[in-house]
Amino acid sequence: MNRQELINLIHERRSFLCVGLDVDKNKMPEHLANVPDGVFQFNKAIIDATIGYTVAYKPNLAFYEAMGIEGLVQLKKTMDYLHGLDKKVFTIADAKRGDIGNTSQQYAKAFLDPQGDFNFDSLTVAPYMGADSVQPFTVYEGKWVILLALTSNKGAFDFQFLPTGGDQKLFEKVLETSKQWGGPENMMYVVGATKADMLTQVRAIVPDSFLLVPGVGAQGGSLEEVCKYGLTKDCGLLVNSSRGIIYASKGLDFAERAAEEARKLQQQMAAVL
Amino acid sequence: MNRQELINLIHERRSFLCVGLDVDKNKMPEHLANVPDGVFQFNKAIIDATIGYTVAYKPNLAFYEAMGIEGLVQLKKTMDYLHGLDKKVFTIADAKRGDIGNTSQQYAKAFLDPQGDFNFDSLTVAPYMGADSVQPFTVYEGKWVILLALTSNKGAFDFQFLPTGGDQKLFEKVLETSKQWGGPENMMYVVGATKADMLTQVRAIVPDSFLLVPGVGAQGGSLEEVCKYGLTKDCGLLVNSSRGIIYASKGLDFAERAAEEARKLQQQMAAVL
Repeated sequence: MNRQELINLIHERRSFLCVGLDVDKNKMPEHLANVPDGVFQFNKAIIDATIGYTVAYKPNLAFYEAMGIEGLVQLKKTMDYLHGLDKKVFTIADAKRGDIGNTSQQYAKAFLDPQGDFNFDSLTVAPYMGADSVQPFTVYEGKWVILLALTSNKGAFDFQFLPTGGDQKLFEKVLETSKQWGGPENMMYVVGATKADMLTQVRAIVPDSFLLVPGVGAQGGSLEEVCKYGLTKDCGLLVNSSRGIIYASKGLDFAERAAEEARKLQQQMAAVL
Repeated sequence: MNRQELINLIHERRSFLCVGLDVDKNKMPEHLANVPDGVFQFNKAIIDATIGYTVAYKPNLAFYEAMGIEGLVQLKKTMDYLHGLDKKVFTIADAKRGDIGNTSQQYAKAFLDPQGDFNFDSLTVAPYMGADSVQPFTVYEGKWVILLALTSNKGAFDFQFLPTGGDQKLFEKVLETSKQWGGPENMMYVVGATKADMLTQVRAIVPDSFLLVPGVGAQGGSLEEVCKYGLTKDCGLLVNSSRGIIYASKGLDFAERAAEEARKLQQQMAAVL
């Protein structure tokens, strides 16, 4: 999905919500936790209930890998289901990959290749290894790399705010340097909602790029703050909520409750757009 | 495998060689590239031919993920085979993972859990997200986190050498800070052989820790230089070679040629130990 198609989708659905499909057998409804294809059934029910309110789904690979190879089978079924829907949606492999050039090429193939098992629209990538670790993800037409800039966790303060010689902190240096590798048509950035006041500094460097903003809800970030500092004329935001939506209930009503939570966020977003 | 067991293994085998199992269907022998279980058969032949000369195997996850779910089935077969051998060996999942705390826990489970599909001894982890992204990998008894410090690629110069306010560059700050998260018993560091002259600075901060050193061979690093600056009284090094060994020949003699290349490195290592 290219930039214009994403912008159109946001306006059509009056939403810039991303639902994080971080399936954990200890947190999902018990009646699905231990049945064959239970993870896929859970995802399918969440997708069916929320797709009217969301423009993107973001499975975090860690949760699937923790279930072993079977977890990845469940992820493939989920992606096949999303690809088969009439309603369009943007897909994000939250995988935080990155390796030397010839190896990042392999990760790009694994997640973005249209002939591959998953065929995601985008992939999150860690910046520590620099140019050749990121560039292989920018070559697929209509696909995106989403680079970690400022993450939503406590550990973000260990390195991301370090001074780097000039007047830029490390996360700003990452943003600045990455502009040599891609642009607003194929590169987004992760900026945590828990650090919404930093969005002004982010926007000073990447005024037009889309930002993937995790941390609203369970992690304590505020949607209002994120919009205040991050919104652009093209929207420029994908705001993610995972646990707050998919684990709104552990009972038989989990999908219905997920829809309610997604709808609440969508309505706040519609008011802003 | 704990630290003392690893040191014993190094002295027993008179080697600190790690063989990188980065299987690429375009580079492996044609007679195995497109047969069922060909990737596992290739790995098995490489392992059987080289295990007398090596103490560790390091599959890079990217190459398996690029083959889709079937690639991970081949990786599981490879790990099952290694676990079933009489000869002990240290295993490294070169996966360069890292995410917020609750998510890194899931990655730790995926790769290090003895009940999981893979049960590796160790996992490479990217430092950008800080403490809570790394600590979940340190809790498994006898297992290791291998943190990226100074990588072997060109892109390493984009961020890893940035000044950070004091007199430490970013990679030195990563080494220094990480000492709060683990010690020489459960944490190693990736330091590229292509930057062997930096090993003095690395050893000033982590004098006793094991270093995983990629980049000897195909990437141009020198074993002699690495030993000169990196060796400790406990050895303290695992030196990786991937392409130089596993793709020494594309013919029917690939395993024999791999053994020759591994043996050459082992003999240089024996001379140093």
